[in-house]
Amino acid sequence: MKTLIVYAHPEPRSLNGSLKDLAVATLEKAGHQVRVSDLYAMNWKAVADAADFGPSASSPLNVGADSGRAFDTGTLTPDIVAEQEKLLWADVVIFQFPLWWYTMPAILKGWVDRVFTAHFAHGIGEFSDVKYGDRFGEGTLAGRRALLSVTVGGPESHYAERGINGPIDDVLFPINHGILYFPGMEVLPPFVVHGAGRITDEDYSVIAKAWEQRLLTLESTEPIAFRPQNLGDYEMPSLTLKKGLEPEGRTGFGLHVR
Amino acid sequence: MKTLIVYAHPEPRSLNGSLKDLAVATLEKAGHQVRVSDLYAMNWKAVADAADFGPSASSPLNVGADSGRAFDTGTLTPDIVAEQEKLLWADVVIFQFPLWWYTMPAILKGWVDRVFTAHFAHGIGEFSDVKYGDRFGEGTLAGRRALLSVTVGGPESHYAERGINGPIDDVLFPINHGILYFPGMEVLPPFVVHGAGRITDEDYSVIAKAWEQRLLTLESTEPIAFRPQNLGDYEMPSLTLKKGLEPEGRTGFGLHVR
Repeated sequence: MKTLIVYAHPEPRSLNGSLKDLAVATLEKAGHQVRVSDLYAMNWKAVADAADFGPSASSPLNVGADSGRAFDTGTLTPDIVAEQEKLLWADVVIFQFPLWWYTMPAILKGWVDRVFTAHFAHGIGEFSDVKYGDRFGEGTLAGRRALLSVTVGGPESHYAERGINGPIDDVLFPINHGILYFPGMEVLPPFVVHGAGRITDEDYSVIAKAWEQRLLTLESTEPIAFRPQNLGDYEMPSLTLKKGLEPEGRTGFGLHVR
Repeated sequence: MKTLIVYAHPEPRSLNGSLKDLAVATLEKAGHQVRVSDLYAMNWKAVADAADFGPSASSPLNVGADSGRAFDTGTLTPDIVAEQEKLLWADVVIFQFPLWWYTMPAILKGWVDRVFTAHFAHGIGEFSDVKYGDRFGEGTLAGRRALLSVTVGGPESHYAERGINGPIDDVLFPINHGILYFPGMEVLPPFVVHGAGRITDEDYSVIAKAWEQRLLTLESTEPIAFRPQNLGDYEMPSLTLKKGLEPEGRTGFGLHVR
């Protein structure tokens, strides 16, 4: 198995750094190949702009169209091309990051903004009244698995079904569904560590065991049952969920899980 | 009225640029003071790291604790201090940005990550078994209003109650509730333009009229009725919504709107 770890934390001696190191050691010991994109160590450029597209940048700039043309003509910058190649190489992609303000740190969002160009991650397939692209279950990254490993400051109850921040599955839905499932990856249930600022050594042993367990079962874990866009669950062209398919008592993001 | 516009788009001649320019003109013509943080033009540093905290950076780095100490001792970098001062100056804060991958562009996330330091935007008040800080309705930015003005590529139906991306109010909840209401701002219903890549001149006239209307009613528009954390709606210390308060048939993020 080939695993890419995309890691976003400024401090190597952090909980996130430890979980990343443990993932590398555990996977390699089990005989898997591992590559790491350590975004802070790489000094990753977080901000998408005209420079990303080389001679394909138009004036006025059109990020969507220009990124697609740069992808097609091979004029994306080498740092973006390298990340796209890592994604194509990988069977599994793990994202290790702290939840900052209910989503990923800017450096990781900038990895998504810049690497997930048109014609690589979106804008693929037919767009018409009967089809709206190959997305949500289909796309360039189909056949791969993805997993979020996230540290969270607040306690678990704040992210429970009735918790003040909203359910953790809803908080992570725009990433799991909107960023990872969108270009075709199967998404595994997240590995979440709560109370990240108050972890004792004993806590860490328990967390490390649970994390190893998840890492050694990446190939057998059941993915989140997001609904494929193009297999009959949605009305066209509105892309609204067909009547009668909603799980009882569920609304919002939860409608899109079978 | 004093209005701060935080604007994040790389192309001045974009729809986002036009909406920002229209906001400045409309508000100034109505006699209001306006300041703009044009993040791309400012070459805003998007990535939070030790350099933000000057001599308050500890080793190993602890972003939460170090940012709070840097805030307390006045060692935050001048770019962060300037943005905090603009927020304190403002009565209303407008965020103008394109929805990229279901959330804000990295440069704007990096503005949040770096400007919303501990002791300014979080980590304020008592943390105990009976209280968990002054947050969600209370905090440094209480008394101010916030408004997202967002351009979205997909059509409105994809973001409807049963739309494949989830309802737009849920997509924006982590920003409206988790970033803006958290430090105390009242949050107005968002101004959303769908189909942003296919706007004709006639479309734009209609959009511009609607936007002017919103801009001229910023002070009278009813905010989203998010539930204050500390006024009795939540169990302590779990911060879960008390039984019986849930609006009928609503689950997930929707529970936290009265």
